Amino acid sequence: MKLIKSIEEMQKLADLWRRDGKEIAFVPTMGYLHEGHLALMRTAKSEGDVLVVSIFVNPIQFGPKEDYARYPRDLERDLRLAESVEVDVVFVPEVKDMYPEGFQTTVDVAELSKPLCGKSRPGHFRGVATVVTKLFNIVKPHVAVFGEKDFQQLAVIKRMVKDLNMDLRIIGHPIVREPDGLAMSSRNVYLSKEERYVALRLSQSLAIAKNLVKQSILDGAEILKAVTSHLCQDNALRLDYAELRDPDTLDEVSVISKPTLLAIAAFVGNTRLIDNCILNPAEAYTA
Amino acid sequence: MKLIKSIEEMQKLADLWRRDGKEIAFVPTMGYLHEGHLALMRTAKSEGDVLVVSIFVNPIQFGPKEDYARYPRDLERDLRLAESVEVDVVFVPEVKDMYPEGFQTTVDVAELSKPLCGKSRPGHFRGVATVVTKLFNIVKPHVAVFGEKDFQQLAVIKRMVKDLNMDLRIIGHPIVREPDGLAMSSRNVYLSKEERYVALRLSQSLAIAKNLVKQSILDGAEILKAVTSHLCQDNALRLDYAELRDPDTLDEVSVISKPTLLAIAAFVGNTRLIDNCILNPAEAYTA
Repeated sequence: MKLIKSIEEMQKLADLWRRDGKEIAFVPTMGYLHEGHLALMRTAKSEGDVLVVSIFVNPIQFGPKEDYARYPRDLERDLRLAESVEVDVVFVPEVKDMYPEGFQTTVDVAELSKPLCGKSRPGHFRGVATVVTKLFNIVKPHVAVFGEKDFQQLAVIKRMVKDLNMDLRIIGHPIVREPDGLAMSSRNVYLSKEERYVALRLSQSLAIAKNLVKQSILDGAEILKAVTSHLCQDNALRLDYAELRDPDTLDEVSVISKPTLLAIAAFVGNTRLIDNCILNPAEAYTA
Repeated sequence: MKLIKSIEEMQKLADLWRRDGKEIAFVPTMGYLHEGHLALMRTAKSEGDVLVVSIFVNPIQFGPKEDYARYPRDLERDLRLAESVEVDVVFVPEVKDMYPEGFQTTVDVAELSKPLCGKSRPGHFRGVATVVTKLFNIVKPHVAVFGEKDFQQLAVIKRMVKDLNMDLRIIGHPIVREPDGLAMSSRNVYLSKEERYVALRLSQSLAIAKNLVKQSILDGAEILKAVTSHLCQDNALRLDYAELRDPDTLDEVSVISKPTLLAIAAFVGNTRLIDNCILNPAEAYTA
């Protein structure tokens, strides 16, 4: 496994691979890898001939009051984990090379960036779209794999790739969960033991919603009422949003008549957590 | 020479060329080709193994009151001219394929898009940066050539390429002029015989400025006064701007102490014309 820090070196290697007819698979990450990342990497490995993983905590996708400075980092551990799933190259660029003086270009996916996390994190998806564009231009992948936990991010990137004619495939990977249901996230390390317990309400409320749909309760308001009353049973959790949206357009949905995204964001202590699932009316019992 | 209309076909051919180790040179145009375009093509031809020219009148870089609908078009003539300089592929995408339903992604070069033409044409450079990004992702060039007549456009694109790590070279080509000095432009066809004569004031005023610099007059206000008084000698010309700017940052310049951009935009009748030159204090006579 090779560690590359230089943008130019990465681009040259990508060119060489492409000249050799190699399919380049790519998983961009912010590091502090967990089993969710490794699952993306295994999928990516099976989709390409060579696998590049980037580790870059992207400053421009964090708001001024967010956790950029304290975001967990452990490169040595990350390299060991990447090696364990046979990553070919770990690309670890430096902030000063990614955002040199005079940097001023951004990529904006207008509509899909507005609701949900876009509302509480203004500029976040512009930062994501911009850094992903940069990474795609550096790694030159044929295929890139993103987790469905960041469902809106995946929707934004798919739209960007289509709109800007980026010539690669985007694959979404199902959420990977802890045995107790908590969606894996590098930010879970922030949680105290008590908060970790409260955090389970996110996945639990998704299960509640799925059960309602199974019982043919397809009214959005009713589902969201059940979800929020479980999430907000006490002040240990502060809800950011719980919403039903079209998985492609992210338009609001009031009745579950086709597969519909249920997306949740909530603060447990100072930690912002997100989770989601697709509610499928085809799974309703026809009694 | 091959005519390609399909985005996918263009991308596949670009991939094939790249696999074969061919250097792809690219000249994006809005068609209605003139000698200025052909000069860019000849330069591009000498920089690569294969030459692609795109012809696409890009709707999103025109303001609602601008000349998108009446912009001159003549594909047959353009194809003949392209063939004459041994273009390999003319890429002519359709608006519906470039901007399908749901399109919402834009590329913005914040600071360089603000002054000069950006002031009177809000959104123009966002439209340019977006379509050029798309065309680069479709044609996959190693090198692209742009005219220096659209100086700010060239500056915006250079910055975008650097900021987003697009792996290609951008070459600027000097302005090509008619024998009487008028900068070549597809829009010159709009001019009546009388307007055509008035339009000469743009290149004449550049010459006046250059002469002042040769005489060691380096004060910006003094130069601009001479320029505008020639341009605005009567109402046949309506000045949009005449400004001195740093060629890289486009910051305002008050004294010519290093090579400085003199940029002019003016309406002659309903036709908006632009022209520019670099004023170089090294060319002052040291008497």
